[in-house]
Amino acid sequence: MRYDIAIVGSGPAGLSAAINAKIRNKNVIVFGSKNLSNKLVKAPSIDNYLGFYEISGEELKNKFANHIEQLGIEIVEKRINNVYSMGDYFALMSGDSMFEATTVILATGVEYGKPIKGEEEFLGRGVGYCATCDAPLYKDKKVAIIGYNHESTEEANFLNEIASKTYFIPMFKGEHLMKDNAGLDTSIEVINDRPIQIQGEKLVNKVSFKEKDIDVDGVFVIKDSASVKSLVPGLETDGPHVIVNINMETNIKGCYACGDCAGKPYSYIKSAGQGQIAAINAVSYLDKLRIEAKKLVK
Amino acid sequence: MRYDIAIVGSGPAGLSAAINAKIRNKNVIVFGSKNLSNKLVKAPSIDNYLGFYEISGEELKNKFANHIEQLGIEIVEKRINNVYSMGDYFALMSGDSMFEATTVILATGVEYGKPIKGEEEFLGRGVGYCATCDAPLYKDKKVAIIGYNHESTEEANFLNEIASKTYFIPMFKGEHLMKDNAGLDTSIEVINDRPIQIQGEKLVNKVSFKEKDIDVDGVFVIKDSASVKSLVPGLETDGPHVIVNINMETNIKGCYACGDCAGKPYSYIKSAGQGQIAAINAVSYLDKLRIEAKKLVK
Repeated sequence: MRYDIAIVGSGPAGLSAAINAKIRNKNVIVFGSKNLSNKLVKAPSIDNYLGFYEISGEELKNKFANHIEQLGIEIVEKRINNVYSMGDYFALMSGDSMFEATTVILATGVEYGKPIKGEEEFLGRGVGYCATCDAPLYKDKKVAIIGYNHESTEEANFLNEIASKTYFIPMFKGEHLMKDNAGLDTSIEVINDRPIQIQGEKLVNKVSFKEKDIDVDGVFVIKDSASVKSLVPGLETDGPHVIVNINMETNIKGCYACGDCAGKPYSYIKSAGQGQIAAINAVSYLDKLRIEAKKLVK
Repeated sequence: MRYDIAIVGSGPAGLSAAINAKIRNKNVIVFGSKNLSNKLVKAPSIDNYLGFYEISGEELKNKFANHIEQLGIEIVEKRINNVYSMGDYFALMSGDSMFEATTVILATGVEYGKPIKGEEEFLGRGVGYCATCDAPLYKDKKVAIIGYNHESTEEANFLNEIASKTYFIPMFKGEHLMKDNAGLDTSIEVINDRPIQIQGEKLVNKVSFKEKDIDVDGVFVIKDSASVKSLVPGLETDGPHVIVNINMETNIKGCYACGDCAGKPYSYIKSAGQGQIAAINAVSYLDKLRIEAKKLVK
């Protein structure tokens, strides 16, 4: 089946898009977490969401959960890895599953992981977020990969073909990574310790841990955040943000973005407002398509 | 005194801007109605404001009223007739009073009433929206006031001191106006009929009704929200909407717009979201000004 609107993300932007699309009788699927938003749930007190004063994140989450439940909206707990524009529809890939939708609303949020000391300071001076982009700079040099996700092991293997020495520093929570070395090339040295600081002078020259340092020429920090760009091939972005216009349209026809992934401020009601704008514009786009289709039939 | 931020309008956009600016310790003044928003109060049931399902407009208004009260925000019940950019601050005119603010957030809503035939055509050529601004032009001349609200009777009295003949055409719904002549000077002629057309050649010369015409030199149409274009000279607009970018910045530095006046969709949480964006960007602009001022002192 083909959905009218696929929404990627279940924070305030995604949920607001979902209720607005549902009220307009569109066939909607929402990918996210039944917990809705970790960021929201952890907020101790929210005072800037007009209508709720000094509400806890948990309480506001419950209000949102009740709202979508009343409208019969369910969250599909699947992670979308890629969204491909197929011309007149989108294919959303989740592992081995594929979902089809005529329009897509991206409400993925942005990665908040606190940067390591020195990470931002040396960004572009030895610190990078995309190994495949910068690898040529590190031919026959020493690199460290600080990996927050599974993809980081692939980036490590790729770099290891070029670099003279590759360190891999797993930052995963849980134990799912380092079992059986997670497919890492055996020549990669794994350091099971938390990095304290990325150091250097003009350029990066070491990563320090509690009890030792390692000498490196480059450091790649591989997080989920780069994802929105890599999630949708061809999507125009500015740093971690999708470029949108005032109607929340991206450069790809039928694809909208809203909430944190569409830029600052990172705040709840801004996200909810943009979710509404995205949904209403997606609905209007769907209606136009239907009218055009009718004309063709005649 | 000079305010950090003046907010024109007390609907969801203006209120959301106000709470966000206040939380950031800015000195804020909000112009509007203690009733907050007529449009909101009249809404029978709202189901698309994330967090509140099937809430009445009256209830949501009370939630908003409570929120601003908790933060100590008061609404100043004055109508702003003009906003002038004075370089490093704005002058907001309300009748004989003037207010100063470093930044302005426009949250005026849009006027839904259909203009009278000829109203737009003769705007600036005998048709105006602010009697106190243009009155001197009509000394010893004949004027008609087409009044949609209570303030219009005050404007009529004011004009009547200057003009040789004043007509008042009440457009109120309900009966609350014309009881006891609503405080209108007795020398003002009230016409209880719907105007069909404002006519003229180069300049306005008559207002026509179904069965008669009246000869006039000027016509004032007094509505709750005059066109935002006439409110702020130099503001770039597109039809009834202020042109804004994704940060709610207008073409005038330090001037932001949000909510219905900044474009469709006309809906509450979109407006509240944009109000938040406008406030946060105004705060960031104020902070930049302060840093620059400090540098100059050094």
